[in-house]
Amino acid sequence: MKIAVIGLGYWGPNLLRNFLAISELEVLGCEKDRKRLEKIKEMLPSASYITDYNALLNDNDLKAVAIATPVGSHYSLTKEFLENGKDVFVEKPMTKSSREAKELIKIAEEQNAILMVGHIFEYNDAVLKIGELIKGGEIGDVQYITSTRVNLGIHRKDANVLWDLAPHDFSILFNWLDSDPVSIATTAKESIVNGIPDVAFIQATFPSGMIADIQVGWLAPSKIRETVVVGSKKMIVYDETNPQEKIKVYDSGVEIEDPHDYGEFLLSYRSGAIHSPTISTREPLRTEMNHFVECIRERKKPRTDGFNALRVIKAVEMAEESRMKKKMITI
Amino acid sequence: MKIAVIGLGYWGPNLLRNFLAISELEVLGCEKDRKRLEKIKEMLPSASYITDYNALLNDNDLKAVAIATPVGSHYSLTKEFLENGKDVFVEKPMTKSSREAKELIKIAEEQNAILMVGHIFEYNDAVLKIGELIKGGEIGDVQYITSTRVNLGIHRKDANVLWDLAPHDFSILFNWLDSDPVSIATTAKESIVNGIPDVAFIQATFPSGMIADIQVGWLAPSKIRETVVVGSKKMIVYDETNPQEKIKVYDSGVEIEDPHDYGEFLLSYRSGAIHSPTISTREPLRTEMNHFVECIRERKKPRTDGFNALRVIKAVEMAEESRMKKKMITI
Amino acid sequence: MKIAVIGLGYWGPNLLRNFLAISELEVLGCEKDRKRLEKIKEMLPSASYITDYNALLNDNDLKAVAIATPVGSHYSLTKEFLENGKDVFVEKPMTKSSREAKELIKIAEEQNAILMVGHIFEYNDAVLKIGELIKGGEIGDVQYITSTRVNLGIHRKDANVLWDLAPHDFSILFNWLDSDPVSIATTAKESIVNGIPDVAFIQATFPSGMIADIQVGWLAPSKIRETVVVGSKKMIVYDETNPQEKIKVYDSGVEIEDPHDYGEFLLSYRSGAIHSPTISTREPLRTEMNHFVECIRERKKPRTDGFNALRVIKAVEMAEESRMKKKMITI
Amino acid sequence: MKIAVIGLGYWGPNLLRNFLAISELEVLGCEKDRKRLEKIKEMLPSASYITDYNALLNDNDLKAVAIATPVGSHYSLTKEFLENGKDVFVEKPMTKSSREAKELIKIAEEQNAILMVGHIFEYNDAVLKIGELIKGGEIGDVQYITSTRVNLGIHRKDANVLWDLAPHDFSILFNWLDSDPVSIATTAKESIVNGIPDVAFIQATFPSGMIADIQVGWLAPSKIRETVVVGSKKMIVYDETNPQEKIKVYDSGVEIEDPHDYGEFLLSYRSGAIHSPTISTREPLRTEMNHFVECIRERKKPRTDGFNALRVIKAVEMAEESRMKKKMITI
Repeated sequence: MKIAVIGLGYWGPNLLRNFLAISELEVLGCEKDRKRLEKIKEMLPSASYITDYNALLNDNDLKAVAIATPVGSHYSLTKEFLENGKDVFVEKPMTKSSREAKELIKIAEEQNAILMVGHIFEYNDAVLKIGELIKGGEIGDVQYITSTRVNLGIHRKDANVLWDLAPHDFSILFNWLDSDPVSIATTAKESIVNGIPDVAFIQATFPSGMIADIQVGWLAPSKIRETVVVGSKKMIVYDETNPQEKIKVYDSGVEIEDPHDYGEFLLSYRSGAIHSPTISTREPLRTEMNHFVECIRERKKPRTDGFNALRVIKAVEMAEESRMKKKMITI
Repeated sequence: MKIAVIGLGYWGPNLLRNFLAISELEVLGCEKDRKRLEKIKEMLPSASYITDYNALLNDNDLKAVAIATPVGSHYSLTKEFLENGKDVFVEKPMTKSSREAKELIKIAEEQNAILMVGHIFEYNDAVLKIGELIKGGEIGDVQYITSTRVNLGIHRKDANVLWDLAPHDFSILFNWLDSDPVSIATTAKESIVNGIPDVAFIQATFPSGMIADIQVGWLAPSKIRETVVVGSKKMIVYDETNPQEKIKVYDSGVEIEDPHDYGEFLLSYRSGAIHSPTISTREPLRTEMNHFVECIRERKKPRTDGFNALRVIKAVEMAEESRMKKKMITI
Repeated sequence: MKIAVIGLGYWGPNLLRNFLAISELEVLGCEKDRKRLEKIKEMLPSASYITDYNALLNDNDLKAVAIATPVGSHYSLTKEFLENGKDVFVEKPMTKSSREAKELIKIAEEQNAILMVGHIFEYNDAVLKIGELIKGGEIGDVQYITSTRVNLGIHRKDANVLWDLAPHDFSILFNWLDSDPVSIATTAKESIVNGIPDVAFIQATFPSGMIADIQVGWLAPSKIRETVVVGSKKMIVYDETNPQEKIKVYDSGVEIEDPHDYGEFLLSYRSGAIHSPTISTREPLRTEMNHFVECIRERKKPRTDGFNALRVIKAVEMAEESRMKKKMITI
Repeated sequence: MKIAVIGLGYWGPNLLRNFLAISELEVLGCEKDRKRLEKIKEMLPSASYITDYNALLNDNDLKAVAIATPVGSHYSLTKEFLENGKDVFVEKPMTKSSREAKELIKIAEEQNAILMVGHIFEYNDAVLKIGELIKGGEIGDVQYITSTRVNLGIHRKDANVLWDLAPHDFSILFNWLDSDPVSIATTAKESIVNGIPDVAFIQATFPSGMIADIQVGWLAPSKIRETVVVGSKKMIVYDETNPQEKIKVYDSGVEIEDPHDYGEFLLSYRSGAIHSPTISTREPLRTEMNHFVECIRERKKPRTDGFNALRVIKAVEMAEESRMKKKMITI
């Protein structure tokens, strides 16, 4: 089976390397910047390379493409390849609007093609483990979630911080909760480059009454990837940067004591055990790439298909609308 | 000089103990719950005690009172004592509305009485040190501030989490920035007791374009008191729970490199030194109580006077309005 | 029942306060420094006070004493009170030699008096929990233990760092292992005051082959209280300064894979879950004082009796001998 | 210039990769295990490869070799290549005895060949920075050093834990102090494989009176690389695993107050600022390889030459003798 990776900038070579590790694949890399291409060739000599993706559109041997180009070209490239009957994996965000996302979903259906989006955290074993704990009822009703996803110093020119980082948080939350926000409020700031917000705060309310606060930024004292899930029974702290204790489950909670007189109540502190379950050290990208190849071979619906992508894009659109109109957006 | 503490619940005894440590003060404690009063008497035998505050209103020897009763009685007690010519220290929030706050300010002026509010963090040496760094220009322009103030398990019945915890963050921010928010968005949740929000997220925008995100809650996996200030030159992490490194100043930042072709820009990572300055271990409450006594003796305006209280109350009112109307509030 | 605390310096007032909290006790404090005594009287007004302990020796109403004087007077005071028929609690180290310790044990037996030593960590719930895990076989065979117990800046004049801090580690190890060291090597340094070692390293070997490394010091960048127990099945990290995760139990370990050729072996990394069990927040000193009173009333042998004290003193003597002779001491 | 790396097991490929990055080098890899060789060829296709090192001995174009074979073959391989006029870089420990080390030093001198040992931490910028602070007098007199270097689960068959890990600590200490230990005591344990100690504690005393405690192990709850240097003025904590704060310099120290009566003294706590200087993120191995090539080209004495290697080997020999004779070894 022949597969091509289009766009070998920052992330594309990782896709290439992972495809090369899957047996019985013929792997092709495509990058228009020749200098860049030479570098990748040296690092990954066992793939073939071309500079113009147009040659791929009518390559009958080519089964599928993985698109890792700048965000602005995701829609048009995905569309072209779907229309030429190729299966497509495209990095997140799949498109820059829900209208475009819906169109791609429709084309994929018509072509009976696989359309998969790179929501990589849905292939992360820590995220999946937390999903099990939530769905299995172990932590009780989810009351609120906070998530902080900040870097130092990697600015992008093809997307602002909302389109760059918030899709990760939304895809994680939707995976866990299977529910869309009913209202979103966003406040953002352009600290470094005019017109490109690089820090944003997002509040979201869900139908159950659960609320979330998401902080995304390119400008912080240190890299943070921390998500806290507070349930009525237990609480979870998920720190992606802590290799040894990625997940900590806190038994502690509060208990309401009997009121000692009318109208009063006391809440006593109930401290409890803390547990860090074993998380496999499998690389999420490997799992993701394997899943794409499996979906192609078995004609299965990907776990992160066009509808997942659309759901996330809708949420980012709400956040963007809130940011630009400076008001809370309610559906 | 004779001074009385009214309300000896959770916090009042701390005021009492600190007044007792100031020389040349005659200290009186007032608590209507007799059982509670007996306990305090045993712990702090060198003060005098009464159960009914009315006896104090016409006590000509009494110079001042410190009010540490439930929030609902702050306004009426403060008013009564001011009108009877006493100087008043009142715990935060001073009142539950800006209307009441303005009235108290007016009465204090008419009576030529000292009116001081217990915004204790403005007497905290770590907060003051950060204020110096900001005002001295060392960290550059403040881009954004995030603050997390969460506990586990201490619920209050006299105020929701916004009135209980957010005044701390607002008083800190106003001390640092000397500027009021132009818009606020709040999302909150009643997790434990119906009608009393116990977790809230607050977004605020300031006239300079600076933005802030504040998380306050009574229900979290562990106690957090962390405020991050990101400036254009340096960044500060303030962790009140870390006795050895309360403040960390990060030299690291980003630099914009020359664009290597039209429309492009690159931001390189500039890592730098981290510095934890020495912070005195002085107890903020001692500093605060000393300041109140000094203001009484020297007839000085307190650093946290009625106007400071009003400013904070207005911000909480905006946050409350946003929470209840489910929309972003702009002034 | 009447009980007296002798020596109200740094630690004695804590004993006094705890006795005062036990019902049906008449509590007396004894301190020869009158200025010091006045301070304590003010803080703890419900006890009676005297300045000369001799008055206690023939006080027929007095049932027991708790001795918290400088180490040099432990032996003689304990002896006098035991000989006068009183039950005695004495702070660690009980004496400065095993000869003296044996003598006190003998006198206590002859007088049928309770003799208890203040090995407070044997009343600490975290230490007891780890003891259960070790004795219950959960962590497998103990391979080695490391312990770091360092402060910043509290120097003593009545004992060097070996006599001051190492008794804690030895009492903990003996509680867990019920086994005495067969060899000890010590290296120490007098950094601040000539003739008084303030940092010491102790290596110990036990009959099972288990080894231990203990670092004690008065001079360190920060306070550390960390003990690591490595077993053949699990490992435990005990951090007394971490209120939320005092004990962490690591499931991880190593596994020997089949050798892939002659003479070779591979050990694969087996990572596992980490668990922090709930530890009660009971104050160890309260438990210790309650135990002493219970032993007096029920004429029971204390959990930390003269023999426990002797065992610890012997180990410190070996460590001291090693330090002074600059050689490894083997029994 | 032609250079060969001999031994492409765990570490050798890193040497190869770094040589390949240095311009004007012709790089050759040598590995007798053909399967292993095939793997490396694929990863690093721009080097040439052979399986038998004998072909290199008489290769007149070959200027130098870097030896990364199991420890047991270091001596004989180094000797052969030196005697054939090649410059040699050999991984630590250079040999398994000081006798062999001295012989290699003599041969290198006779042949006028470069002999360099892979004490990589002496090319680590954090180690060098601490060396500057110590030698520049900034931290005052060094009182003691503690070092913990423990892994989980990587056992070796060609050397015990003393020969594997302690050379790092000794080379670091000798770099900082330029002084050899006058006494060493070691206690070790064979936890996993009979006859191969996998955890060891080493105490060392230096001529200045400074003492050190080194813990090395292959079996620990988590990987630790922490070295603490306590000086009379400042203290340094060096944590190699903390990318953002590798070095922390503590201003805090103790001060002796005036004695308040005869024979007494008090030490007050003086807390101070903490500073983490910027450390370059240069890879130490790159610096080391560059240095080797520079020494070859300019016929310079390497910073880590045969005498450095000998000094470390002598210290490990003392530690081994102490371990086996179960006594403290004094020179």
